[in-house]
Amino acid sequence: MNFQTFEINNFAARAPAAQIEEVESVLKKLTLTVKLSGQAGKSSKYVFDPIAANGFITNGLFAKAWERIPIPSTWRPLGKDIDAGKLGVWGEIQFSNYPFFINNIVRANAMFLAKESLPPMGRINSVVIVTKSKMFDAAQSTLYYEQAVNQLELLASQITVPVRIYGLTVPFGAKVNAVATKYQGETSRTVVDQARVSVLLQQGNCQITKVM
Amino acid sequence: MNFQTFEINNFAARAPAAQIEEVESVLKKLTLTVKLSGQAGKSSKYVFDPIAANGFITNGLFAKAWERIPIPSTWRPLGKDIDAGKLGVWGEIQFSNYPFFINNIVRANAMFLAKESLPPMGRINSVVIVTKSKMFDAAQSTLYYEQAVNQLELLASQITVPVRIYGLTVPFGAKVNAVATKYQGETSRTVVDQARVSVLLQQGNCQITKVM
Repeated sequence: MNFQTFEINNFAARAPAAQIEEVESVLKKLTLTVKLSGQAGKSSKYVFDPIAANGFITNGLFAKAWERIPIPSTWRPLGKDIDAGKLGVWGEIQFSNYPFFINNIVRANAMFLAKESLPPMGRINSVVIVTKSKMFDAAQSTLYYEQAVNQLELLASQITVPVRIYGLTVPFGAKVNAVATKYQGETSRTVVDQARVSVLLQQGNCQITKVM
Repeated sequence: MNFQTFEINNFAARAPAAQIEEVESVLKKLTLTVKLSGQAGKSSKYVFDPIAANGFITNGLFAKAWERIPIPSTWRPLGKDIDAGKLGVWGEIQFSNYPFFINNIVRANAMFLAKESLPPMGRINSVVIVTKSKMFDAAQSTLYYEQAVNQLELLASQITVPVRIYGLTVPFGAKVNAVATKYQGETSRTVVDQARVSVLLQQGNCQITKVM
């Protein structure tokens, strides 16, 4: 997939270049993931599939020796673990409900300021958050890139850690390869079927249309 | 109901006493609100009812000239409005999913630092967040007081605005009057039936048991 980015606190100069290249190579190799929407009024429409995307991205990072990072016990009230980290780069894939974004940023900033060591990745030097762009129809109240950027702009003066947000995109008006996954039920993660499809997104219309 | 409190940034000295008394008088007059749980395995158990509690608290505050406060357009990416505010006291009733707590605190702090004026209540001088205590069985992933306190302790050094968290409680092992509301469906706010009941909570057991 393609992506857009937004960053604060001089991320480009302060984050380790090798790890950032790893993140970007995983995102570039990522195939768009879609699923049939179960939401009322959207029953035969494809929407962005956060479960498969999350799996592909974390597996891509794990293959490059990134690891799920447990949050040290002192900080446990702020969460259990971080999706993927390596050599101080705190990585979160955030396709969930929008309030998790500020939680992710604030807890990373708190541990950064406290110079906390998070084995096995060590002290935090930067934060990477992967989101989807608003161009994709998705479940209600889920975070999208543009919203994350707007929020981070408003909170930037309170945040010290370097942060870069990635917003996944595809070109408008062109056939795009996608992986369509069917799950056992609306909230299930059990895969019933998975197929390659071609889809199309039109500017000004966030519906993901299947094409032949 | 009864309540416990936790505060940072010298709340007691800096928040306006008259408005804080109004909040506390509303909470003291509040009757415990319960509903039958629709969650699997909890089908005939009472749990805390956040909808009715929210309604009773906001109506109690509105009767004392508190008002729903729109968030100024500059800050709109952080939300639409605040539950209730008066003369600079920013009040939120937070029984929803836990990540909203940090969102509430961080956005209030941002507007406090920016000395933003929020008509009709003016500039923020303090923040009050009303939560339920862990003693009540409630929907999964919803915020409870003890968790909010643990999170705020960890983030306190990053927050400048005075904050007090209220955690609603009832005595253990004693009959407590409650309002039991039946809604049209699990996620509905349409009231089908509302009745006065007596309930009992036992120490070490967060089940709300109906008693005769």
